[in-house]
Amino acid sequence: MEFSETLAKRRMVRNYTDEPVTREQLERIAQAGARAPSAGNTRGQSFVVVTDSATRQAIAGLAGESHYVDLGFDPWISRAPAHIIIGVSEAAYHNRYQETDKLGPDGEIEWPVPYWWVDAGASLMAILLAAIDEGLAAGFLGVHAFDELEALVGMPEDVSAIGIVTIGHPAADRRSGSLNRPAPIGIHWERWHAQT
Amino acid sequence: MEFSETLAKRRMVRNYTDEPVTREQLERIAQAGARAPSAGNTRGQSFVVVTDSATRQAIAGLAGESHYVDLGFDPWISRAPAHIIIGVSEAAYHNRYQETDKLGPDGEIEWPVPYWWVDAGASLMAILLAAIDEGLAAGFLGVHAFDELEALVGMPEDVSAIGIVTIGHPAADRRSGSLNRPAPIGIHWERWHAQT
Repeated sequence: MEFSETLAKRRMVRNYTDEPVTREQLERIAQAGARAPSAGNTRGQSFVVVTDSATRQAIAGLAGESHYVDLGFDPWISRAPAHIIIGVSEAAYHNRYQETDKLGPDGEIEWPVPYWWVDAGASLMAILLAAIDEGLAAGFLGVHAFDELEALVGMPEDVSAIGIVTIGHPAADRRSGSLNRPAPIGIHWERWHAQT
Repeated sequence: MEFSETLAKRRMVRNYTDEPVTREQLERIAQAGARAPSAGNTRGQSFVVVTDSATRQAIAGLAGESHYVDLGFDPWISRAPAHIIIGVSEAAYHNRYQETDKLGPDGEIEWPVPYWWVDAGASLMAILLAAIDEGLAAGFLGVHAFDELEALVGMPEDVSAIGIVTIGHPAADRRSGSLNRPAPIGIHWERWHAQT
């Protein structure tokens, strides 16, 4: 699919059909996440691909899916045939920036921006677009209990999950009320508030 | 261009030819950044597109370009015909999650993940891929002095820059030594450390 088409189709889809997704599709989607950059090439991101029904049900439970179903949404988390949990290790970045080529005279750099979250977000975007490129649809959500989520899939202590990408064949869904907010993203020319 | 091709070509390019980029290209690239998701549709990301030569020189100065040139790299920051500075407002997220539909019984949610950085990273990835889709190349860098960078382009107090995307027509460049690190991104099936 054309890049511009994947971008134009990019939205959170919160319902899926029963049609399964293939292992090959999921591999390509996860590999797309691994094409994201990382500070100092730390590559601190990681992905856990879940298709097991019981694990997906448990994840839906941690996300409070039944509450959203009560509000009129579809059970889109448990219904999605695949989840990709995106994780990132802050410790990996500190280790990387204590290597010789990154160490300054005062030791490890100070981090004005926590690039581990930025890099995880770059992987998220690649995964969302790659799902669309496969003819599938994706959503994204956090949970109320990240510790339990990380334990559920056996993430090591130093890895933090940022959330779950749900993947499947799109079905008609109830749109988020957040989409009604008039909130343009600002694009400024030459400097802030310049005329566009 | 096919999505898969933009993804395969995704790498930091640290040198550019003198050929200019057009306003239309930069508009499409910045609009790609605005196609990234955001928590609660906060849309707290923002972009400042810089083509002015003096501003690009000043940005290169804040990034310590001359130091890298001394090390044998090209003056790729000042040479890039365009910069896109990516910013994000954490305050916008707090404001959003104090709106009625997001407020819980205990007030604003606690943030287990600072999604403003994640969302900025999603915009970064979209911008990097969109530059490739235009037949251009892109790099990304932070600076040592973010306060000065934000002041230089007039970013408001509540907006933090995460760095600068350099954009131009690719030229032969010296690759980062970081690329020699053997650091695969982990893709795990069903749970961490499962056989892939």
